Amino acid sequence: MSERTGRPGSLLESVKGPRDLKLLGAAELPRLAAEIRDLLVSATARTGGHLGPNLGVVELTIALHRVFDSPHDRILWDTGHQAYVHKMLTGRAGLFDTLRQEGGLSGYPSQTESEHDIVENSHASTALSYADGLAKAYKVRRESDRTVVAVIGDGALTGGMAWEALNNIAAHRDLPLIIVVNDNGRSYSPTIGGLASHLASLRATQRYEDVLEFVKGNLAKVPVVGPPVYDALHGVKKGIKDVLAPQVMFEDLGLKYIGLVDGHDEQAVEAALRKARGFRRPVIVHVLTKKGFGYSFAENHDEDCFHSPTPFDPLTGEEKPKPHGWTNVFSQEIVRLGAERQDIVAITAAMLGPTGLIPFSEAYPDRLYDVGIAEQHALTSAAGLALGGLHPVVALYSTFLNRAFDQLLMDVALHRLPVTVVLDRAGVTGDDGASHNGMWDLSILQVVPGLSIAVPRDEPRLRELLAEAVRVDDGPTVIRYPKGPVTAEIEAVGQLGGMDVLRAGDPDVLIVSVGPMAELCLEAAALLDAQGISTTVVDPRWVKPLDEALVPAAGTHKLVVVVEDSGRVGGVGDAVARMLRDADVDVPVRTYGIPQRFLDHAKRAKILSEIGLTSQDIAREITEAVAKRSAALENHPAR
Amino acid sequence: MSERTGRPGSLLESVKGPRDLKLLGAAELPRLAAEIRDLLVSATARTGGHLGPNLGVVELTIALHRVFDSPHDRILWDTGHQAYVHKMLTGRAGLFDTLRQEGGLSGYPSQTESEHDIVENSHASTALSYADGLAKAYKVRRESDRTVVAVIGDGALTGGMAWEALNNIAAHRDLPLIIVVNDNGRSYSPTIGGLASHLASLRATQRYEDVLEFVKGNLAKVPVVGPPVYDALHGVKKGIKDVLAPQVMFEDLGLKYIGLVDGHDEQAVEAALRKARGFRRPVIVHVLTKKGFGYSFAENHDEDCFHSPTPFDPLTGEEKPKPHGWTNVFSQEIVRLGAERQDIVAITAAMLGPTGLIPFSEAYPDRLYDVGIAEQHALTSAAGLALGGLHPVVALYSTFLNRAFDQLLMDVALHRLPVTVVLDRAGVTGDDGASHNGMWDLSILQVVPGLSIAVPRDEPRLRELLAEAVRVDDGPTVIRYPKGPVTAEIEAVGQLGGMDVLRAGDPDVLIVSVGPMAELCLEAAALLDAQGISTTVVDPRWVKPLDEALVPAAGTHKLVVVVEDSGRVGGVGDAVARMLRDADVDVPVRTYGIPQRFLDHAKRAKILSEIGLTSQDIAREITEAVAKRSAALENHPAR
Repeated sequence: MSERTGRPGSLLESVKGPRDLKLLGAAELPRLAAEIRDLLVSATARTGGHLGPNLGVVELTIALHRVFDSPHDRILWDTGHQAYVHKMLTGRAGLFDTLRQEGGLSGYPSQTESEHDIVENSHASTALSYADGLAKAYKVRRESDRTVVAVIGDGALTGGMAWEALNNIAAHRDLPLIIVVNDNGRSYSPTIGGLASHLASLRATQRYEDVLEFVKGNLAKVPVVGPPVYDALHGVKKGIKDVLAPQVMFEDLGLKYIGLVDGHDEQAVEAALRKARGFRRPVIVHVLTKKGFGYSFAENHDEDCFHSPTPFDPLTGEEKPKPHGWTNVFSQEIVRLGAERQDIVAITAAMLGPTGLIPFSEAYPDRLYDVGIAEQHALTSAAGLALGGLHPVVALYSTFLNRAFDQLLMDVALHRLPVTVVLDRAGVTGDDGASHNGMWDLSILQVVPGLSIAVPRDEPRLRELLAEAVRVDDGPTVIRYPKGPVTAEIEAVGQLGGMDVLRAGDPDVLIVSVGPMAELCLEAAALLDAQGISTTVVDPRWVKPLDEALVPAAGTHKLVVVVEDSGRVGGVGDAVARMLRDADVDVPVRTYGIPQRFLDHAKRAKILSEIGLTSQDIAREITEAVAKRSAALENHPAR
Repeated sequence: MSERTGRPGSLLESVKGPRDLKLLGAAELPRLAAEIRDLLVSATARTGGHLGPNLGVVELTIALHRVFDSPHDRILWDTGHQAYVHKMLTGRAGLFDTLRQEGGLSGYPSQTESEHDIVENSHASTALSYADGLAKAYKVRRESDRTVVAVIGDGALTGGMAWEALNNIAAHRDLPLIIVVNDNGRSYSPTIGGLASHLASLRATQRYEDVLEFVKGNLAKVPVVGPPVYDALHGVKKGIKDVLAPQVMFEDLGLKYIGLVDGHDEQAVEAALRKARGFRRPVIVHVLTKKGFGYSFAENHDEDCFHSPTPFDPLTGEEKPKPHGWTNVFSQEIVRLGAERQDIVAITAAMLGPTGLIPFSEAYPDRLYDVGIAEQHALTSAAGLALGGLHPVVALYSTFLNRAFDQLLMDVALHRLPVTVVLDRAGVTGDDGASHNGMWDLSILQVVPGLSIAVPRDEPRLRELLAEAVRVDDGPTVIRYPKGPVTAEIEAVGQLGGMDVLRAGDPDVLIVSVGPMAELCLEAAALLDAQGISTTVVDPRWVKPLDEALVPAAGTHKLVVVVEDSGRVGGVGDAVARMLRDADVDVPVRTYGIPQRFLDHAKRAKILSEIGLTSQDIAREITEAVAKRSAALENHPAR
């Protein structure tokens, strides 16, 4: 893009940290902002990454680090994908060629990278709760000179926990806590709901604030709740209603409000933040920004303002074409099913594009609900839709289902409602770091009574299992598949109960292959074959409940192996082992999956290799286990 | 209490369903309300139950069933414990002597009891999402004459998912959906936060509504978001600000609002509901009620208005004394630890009394945070407190932690933060039905990296393990214990690694006893002894991570048995089995716990007996397993 970006002699190069930033004159800041934007575009063009959100917060981030004194003051980035500029201004501009690469800069804040980073979790709507806790802690510890600042998008405000936090923050009026609402009118796609309309209408004047302070002062003297209070309030308000502006929801909650601020006028943002800091109490600073600002291809990108492009050409804005993926297959299939079945409706939580629901939304606009970043509501609203006689399909990223576990369990499963949950990005996702990996679902979902779980191994199975899932009418179903290109057909060579046999071979090892692990398992089987170890590979297709045919099949093998692309604690492997124990079949079982720790970001293949989920690793371990078992059986030919 | 209650000749006896209720004259309703209150008091005096909340909704429930046509119209009760009156008016008044008894009336709505019941889950804040889904379904199905009504307390509105639902409902202005806010100023204890203050100040007049309609009509013509919109709104508002009332948060979101309504004036409530029904769009009806209304002992009960008393004397309001319970022990111990450690702070989610935190709140008022019904915020705010250098102790009911699983995983554990979560009511709780049993925690928590879990078997262990938990400074800890009287000391006879040996006996069976299952395990061991089977019983105290000493110990026994008071899928039993497999120790393992299904309500002991968690059952099954194993070993002395 540019010769000056982060290069020797550039302004950005001279900023080693917030201290340097504060030394710059206001006149130099537009040049700094331009350099930052150049670096954002050139870095993400190479590596992919969250371009649009970061282009929108360049001036806001500069202002934050000029006004506040991080890390003494604490700046929290909700969701965290908009922290690239923050990274550049806290000594990491020179590292952007390593963005999202193994061992390089994380795409999210990272405590190991910098003392300026705090929240590593990339799930939305958390920052206000963290800020509430931090501010309370500083009060208890009498470190009252520290200000806590949380930057949250208008999209993330649709998440319930943001509301829980607002309600609590409003109750602690002595905490110096600043909430910057970065209002770009979008989550991934445009923000939905009543809040979005309301945000578009907010305003405040100094006069209004003065009057409100007076009212609040009087209200504080009135005891809480009940008709007498109503009368008292009525009297107070009647007298001053003509000087008050309406529709100030945040003020209603008791939060101070400053806005609207033009988020691309750095000096205006600085002024608002300084004013907010002066209050020493909770304040909302409402900043209007434009996602993708300053890079025309992003600004004009209808779907998501280049929210998180794959590598692209910076001069044309053209992304490299994406391979035919699991998401595409779902996308096509749900449209086909929607044509057959008028009772199928679809729900997304602010992820219409990424989950593949755009074609469905175009084909059946009246049967598509985007609920915003609100996974809890997505599931319980789906329960309501099912109670009303429809069959909802809720499409989420696997990791985000954790937000709605209680709702799936208590609101859907307890009522045996036919809701199909489609989990994309299941298993190791890679680049996006620890909190994006979909490595929890196959474990926690095991406990849900009456829930059935399907894991397709290839494109035909995804089509087939989705069709089977929406036919289940007496309880919930989950279907999960990974990120990336879809596996071409892997044909079954036979059937065992309801399971597909992918390779037949008695009597040494029975490999239970979960979904897309089939390729790896077949490779491992071939390697074992070369060692003289005969291997049967089965794909259960539905992993919950497990097929009863597994029990007799296991009994005829010396070793049972389960391979899955999910956390190995409590997953399908444990379920198979339990099933065999419960049937008094004490054949040895070995389970392979993702080790139960948070994974660093890297490419999916690299991570799978590091955690030993390769055909070579598994074949080697099975060989050892069989050798050991054979030795034992030779001495004592039992069972 | 009364001779007339539900008896032949009473009004209540004549009401077999909503149709009969509609036939009554307005003048008869106060007598009906009095009969209902008498029955509420006499029934709960005998069985215990949610008295306070139901006394508060007598007139509201009568009005609902007179105005709407259930089950054609759908009435949803958030949380559900306030549905007793609804049960009485839908043909179940005669069954109240069976309330919360096995095979009798459930304490919550139940689809198997009545077509008028819908939501069985007793977790709060769900009803609005269900209602949203139901209303959308009726629209898709063109059943537009059906009205959906959700009754939700002001306390439940502090839950994030209620906010997610409100935000979505506001976006669908064509749905005939009525939200009745039953505002009694309390959750369990008084409702907290900015919302509570706001609710106390709401009002609306017809004139205000008319003007607002006009404004909204104009706003709808303005495109969304950005400075031009601001200007347009500013202009519109400026012209009409002097006729608008302030602080109408619900209207800000775009919801119609009717209130305040005196919830004990049945005719006023009917009028408000009829008006709301006429709008054919989302409407909030804000009803003020008094928890415990009409029964002086409840009205004047400071802590919780007889929220859910155990059996009591209806003439004096005196509850039977409660035995010394696990909660008491925690209650005492956390106060003691709080004196030693200034950095210990405590968090409750609207359950100050039930979790035993009242003494802590009195001793250290500045270090206690009641966050309302907001488990997500409780955990992430705790993360913030820990980031700020404190050690938060979050006290919850086990089943409600499911609401904050993602927050514990991603906000606390990913950041390795020292937060202690105390789970009361773990295991089978009994009377309160399926959604109150704490039977999920030991399974889903297994997947959380870096989390340690302690399960005390008796009073000394609870004191000891809590002290150990708050000393852990590099990650989260969970400690969980059941409802009811605490187990007296069960002494260890030795140590094995970090585990307590409760009974030594080689080499037949090793029983791993989890927490309060110790008594049962020791009884089973005594029964086995009489059969000539020698049993070692160990209590790991910390069940995650498991003590490494288990591996060699297991290798010297013929059978390993794990007994836990939690769901058996993915619990400690599975963890022990996995640990042994991973160490290539293929000794047979048998696991006992709660079967993975939703349990009907009954007494705890009865449920344990029904699911086979008794010493007799377990001893019998172990005897069979050992016999089988011995037979196998006799033929082939392998392992």
